[in-house]
Amino acid sequence: MMIVMKPGASAEEIDHVIDRIVSVGARAHVSKGDEVTLIGAIGDREHVQRLELEGVAGVAQVVPILKPYKLSSAQMGGGERSVFEIGGRRIGGEHFAMIAGPCTVESREQVLETAEAVKNAGAAMFRGGAYKPRTSPYAFQGLGQAGLRLLAEAKEIHGMPIVTELMDVRDLDAVLEVADVVQIGARNMQNYTLLSEIGRSGCPVLLKRGLSATLEELLMAAEYILKEGNEKVMLCERGIRTFETAYRFTLDLMAVPVLRQLSHLPVVVDPSHAAGRRDLVLPLSLAAAAAGADGIIVEVHPNPEEAICDGPQALRADEFADYAAAVERAAAVAGKAFTHA
Amino acid sequence: MMIVMKPGASAEEIDHVIDRIVSVGARAHVSKGDEVTLIGAIGDREHVQRLELEGVAGVAQVVPILKPYKLSSAQMGGGERSVFEIGGRRIGGEHFAMIAGPCTVESREQVLETAEAVKNAGAAMFRGGAYKPRTSPYAFQGLGQAGLRLLAEAKEIHGMPIVTELMDVRDLDAVLEVADVVQIGARNMQNYTLLSEIGRSGCPVLLKRGLSATLEELLMAAEYILKEGNEKVMLCERGIRTFETAYRFTLDLMAVPVLRQLSHLPVVVDPSHAAGRRDLVLPLSLAAAAAGADGIIVEVHPNPEEAICDGPQALRADEFADYAAAVERAAAVAGKAFTHA
Amino acid sequence: MMIVMKPGASAEEIDHVIDRIVSVGARAHVSKGDEVTLIGAIGDREHVQRLELEGVAGVAQVVPILKPYKLSSAQMGGGERSVFEIGGRRIGGEHFAMIAGPCTVESREQVLETAEAVKNAGAAMFRGGAYKPRTSPYAFQGLGQAGLRLLAEAKEIHGMPIVTELMDVRDLDAVLEVADVVQIGARNMQNYTLLSEIGRSGCPVLLKRGLSATLEELLMAAEYILKEGNEKVMLCERGIRTFETAYRFTLDLMAVPVLRQLSHLPVVVDPSHAAGRRDLVLPLSLAAAAAGADGIIVEVHPNPEEAICDGPQALRADEFADYAAAVERAAAVAGKAFTHA
Amino acid sequence: MMIVMKPGASAEEIDHVIDRIVSVGARAHVSKGDEVTLIGAIGDREHVQRLELEGVAGVAQVVPILKPYKLSSAQMGGGERSVFEIGGRRIGGEHFAMIAGPCTVESREQVLETAEAVKNAGAAMFRGGAYKPRTSPYAFQGLGQAGLRLLAEAKEIHGMPIVTELMDVRDLDAVLEVADVVQIGARNMQNYTLLSEIGRSGCPVLLKRGLSATLEELLMAAEYILKEGNEKVMLCERGIRTFETAYRFTLDLMAVPVLRQLSHLPVVVDPSHAAGRRDLVLPLSLAAAAAGADGIIVEVHPNPEEAICDGPQALRADEFADYAAAVERAAAVAGKAFTHA
Repeated sequence: MMIVMKPGASAEEIDHVIDRIVSVGARAHVSKGDEVTLIGAIGDREHVQRLELEGVAGVAQVVPILKPYKLSSAQMGGGERSVFEIGGRRIGGEHFAMIAGPCTVESREQVLETAEAVKNAGAAMFRGGAYKPRTSPYAFQGLGQAGLRLLAEAKEIHGMPIVTELMDVRDLDAVLEVADVVQIGARNMQNYTLLSEIGRSGCPVLLKRGLSATLEELLMAAEYILKEGNEKVMLCERGIRTFETAYRFTLDLMAVPVLRQLSHLPVVVDPSHAAGRRDLVLPLSLAAAAAGADGIIVEVHPNPEEAICDGPQALRADEFADYAAAVERAAAVAGKAFTHA
Repeated sequence: MMIVMKPGASAEEIDHVIDRIVSVGARAHVSKGDEVTLIGAIGDREHVQRLELEGVAGVAQVVPILKPYKLSSAQMGGGERSVFEIGGRRIGGEHFAMIAGPCTVESREQVLETAEAVKNAGAAMFRGGAYKPRTSPYAFQGLGQAGLRLLAEAKEIHGMPIVTELMDVRDLDAVLEVADVVQIGARNMQNYTLLSEIGRSGCPVLLKRGLSATLEELLMAAEYILKEGNEKVMLCERGIRTFETAYRFTLDLMAVPVLRQLSHLPVVVDPSHAAGRRDLVLPLSLAAAAAGADGIIVEVHPNPEEAICDGPQALRADEFADYAAAVERAAAVAGKAFTHA
Repeated sequence: MMIVMKPGASAEEIDHVIDRIVSVGARAHVSKGDEVTLIGAIGDREHVQRLELEGVAGVAQVVPILKPYKLSSAQMGGGERSVFEIGGRRIGGEHFAMIAGPCTVESREQVLETAEAVKNAGAAMFRGGAYKPRTSPYAFQGLGQAGLRLLAEAKEIHGMPIVTELMDVRDLDAVLEVADVVQIGARNMQNYTLLSEIGRSGCPVLLKRGLSATLEELLMAAEYILKEGNEKVMLCERGIRTFETAYRFTLDLMAVPVLRQLSHLPVVVDPSHAAGRRDLVLPLSLAAAAAGADGIIVEVHPNPEEAICDGPQALRADEFADYAAAVERAAAVAGKAFTHA
Repeated sequence: MMIVMKPGASAEEIDHVIDRIVSVGARAHVSKGDEVTLIGAIGDREHVQRLELEGVAGVAQVVPILKPYKLSSAQMGGGERSVFEIGGRRIGGEHFAMIAGPCTVESREQVLETAEAVKNAGAAMFRGGAYKPRTSPYAFQGLGQAGLRLLAEAKEIHGMPIVTELMDVRDLDAVLEVADVVQIGARNMQNYTLLSEIGRSGCPVLLKRGLSATLEELLMAAEYILKEGNEKVMLCERGIRTFETAYRFTLDLMAVPVLRQLSHLPVVVDPSHAAGRRDLVLPLSLAAAAAGADGIIVEVHPNPEEAICDGPQALRADEFADYAAAVERAAAVAGKAFTHA
């Protein structure tokens, strides 16, 4: 940590800062310049982070030097990218996971039909929501436990690992009975209660970036999970909020290579929610795969016009095989191959 | 709801849209133009909202006409602004509530000293956090139940209503024992579990706007609480995320007059978190009061340099009386007077 | 255009709006609903756009139905994508143009060495700045006319079309002597004087999106050029401003497929400025090409460490061939091939 | 400037950075920590800024310590706020300037009627646009020279200083004949040609913040003007672009106190453009004045329903006196008084 003193900081003010640094067990390196004095606080990361020097007399600026996250950092990976095995499928490194399924579990027929289609087209995992976070309290909130049972049936029949969202800690046990990967939605990225509990469960997590979260905040949210001993966190970019009104969210594909530099954790992209429109899903998926994403999570429906929720952005089940083949070619450009059971 | 058909939409496509509108119990008004056909879906709000026509063949655009919130809307207030009485203090209409206290409950001495200072200076309510949402899992997370007990003691001694944050539904009963107003933090604005439970409790709520939430989303979050029968929701602007790096968040004071147009609910401003710096708190508070806010929630500490959390943004307890007097003058410009017990 | 009247709008207010619509030569279609009355203004686009009904008594909302741009719209292309031929190279449709060269023209050696390297690696055009818009008045502002002469020499020797920026209308003639494509920078996207003059010149234009411009505003800026009779406008995405601080700008790759839907004009991506870092340029370029971009404009330098300006984001000239080959594979995924002379 | 080396930076890499620092005439202070080495580059501001060390081998991060602007900085003001006298009116320090008039000059009657109304209500200066930057090339672009002549007439009759916009350097002489203050619009904030020329003219400038410009960029734009010897620059906040769709722009009132800390230059607020709606202008103006703005520039029209441009946001001339009186009360809360001739 680097402390920049104000131009006219007094010797007492400088000494006070040095004392504070020493008091947490760190060392202070002082550089007196013509205009300002700089003080480096050097020592153990956790000690230094305990310093709260902003606003202290004579202090102009506090510049963090080390990243505030540790377990999710690239250094923790020792230069290797994490590869997770989930129900026999791999994600990370050279392994690209196609995760597909309906936005919301609606009916037995819908679930089984979609699962069959995406499995045949090479999808690695099956996604489907039983609990749905909805902006409006008047909107459909998901089938709940009945939805979980349908996912369990699809898993039994088609053998694909299940990705499904958890919103309420009180539903954790029920969700864990069927989920191979628990999804934490964008709105809950900083729901620390949820993060800690899912961390304790040990179940693999797909953690979606909040819609105006920085990458550092996303990694800090991952840190809440990792800190409880759960190492299997996948980071998911799903679009951020900007001033642009031509699309629902702005898919931030720069996050893909940058997260892969900052962290050893796999990076997944959700093109469906950002776009909100089916016709953008293919080009965005190709771009995500070419940018080096470790997987895609995409919405598919046998009959999108009849979908209860988010139909306009769902790929048609009967067109999914062509879509998946194109994504596979784009992933190959980035040196990755689809994972299969 | 207005449906704009694509320029070349076929008669079948137009008829299909009309059928969908009729099927939910609404009526369709068709206007055929030279370039496009417009179809108005007219009827009961809840019926019409159930239509999901985006992405349907031939549809270019779906334009919502009615607001998606109801109970929080200005119309529901019948042209009157809601006034809530909380522990003998009023907020809303002509009543301006100064809510002050430390960011975090740290010690008995800190709590009681601050409570006395802000009470003497005319504050209406006392704020203090026992449960703290922190970006880093390594940071101090609040005193929890011990903190709640200190707040209870301050309430007993100084008689001010208590505002404190709830993060985990499992802490609801403990928080309700001491809180006169439950605060829902920005990160939890769309934690629907929390919103519904606090709605059922009936306890007044201070609902903070998420840091990239639109005003409509804030009102939809309020709707989750109101829908459970809890009418006492105060909306709180606390800064949004923008590209600007000179301050932590950008306090959106336009939200004050606009929320007051859209909704009958009181609007409170939190200048401390947006600024992150003590010296901005006064000008922002004056601006908020002059803009017509119904209250301010501000951080005060007897010794900010020693604060565990967010010290740099806390007003000094011994300077609070001058601050409050200035805010009272600014509120008067907007036709409001401080509320007192 | 659709006018939504306020719930309690009077008959007089409704009649007044109808009169205004009729007065500009359009027709009014009225739909009276249970809660609100909707009035469609239907007629010639330019007539209808002249209506300014916001704020008129009784009007709640004015919803534009037609896009405000015409010549740049996809409809104007008649369903075909524009293909431009510039110095024997093609851009648009199936033709992908790699545009490469230094950020800034610094010296004869630097220009010629870079031109040779990028030409040999398959670049279609050569870029280089003689006039540089710099945030700081104290920074290097470009070589000016001397820089133009070096570009002219590179063109003579290597035969590649030249892309260079124009900032001041008074430099137009000098720039046109050497430029095959005139670049309008992001800061000048709404410099209407410049747009109109370059429109009159007839010279092909690379129009960069302003750093917080919507796609509609970008197309309106293109419209200023097209309106003067200049049909050769290429749209360029170069990163937008968001709250994220991990990178300089957020490259908005959703703009690629969406601009290709809205407009017939070719879409080019500049990965260098958004990234600000060399190591992000390759993944972003692959993503841009896979998303369907019609070209890339990228910075290359023989010795980036010695570059006067933006060295950290420049690709090394001796690594450019590998880079270009990878981009060519990504473009193939989107059905495009590199254009050559 | 502080250079943070990468954890594994070699001795050669560190020495290379030190050599670069020394080569521009600065001194290097090295602090070797357990994890990283920090190097402070200390010396003359302009020398140090010439260093471009990002991307150099071994360098992790370059942290600027000094602000890149000089003439516009608070330090240059020597702790005093600048007060400008323009046509006998003062702005800055304790002097608050109300600048009012129509968005666009439309007719002799409109101009003179508005000028009389705002003068009688205590406005210090008269604003009106003869050249209008319009997003659409099909929209009304202003009366041009005829508009300037009407402004000259209003000045002669009512004696108020004139504020009017310049868009094209080629119109500079014509504008200077009538303008007491030249306005640079938000779209031209980084039109460096225009900034330098207006700097050379010596005429006072109202410089509007670009709609996604940071405060630092605004001050750098001011620096372009100040550098040419023109000291009279007023900074103008007029709303920034955010994700919020409930209003046209988000008026950033935090910019008022922060600009007043960073710079000695007066700060003016334009509430009309941000709001886009008349009913928000009063609360935003009160907030701006209470926050400490040195002036307001606001749109007024004798008959807003008939305005050619931006009528919905114009205050009615016959209501302006009440508006101005309210703003005067809010300015008093911040310790300021209206300036008069």
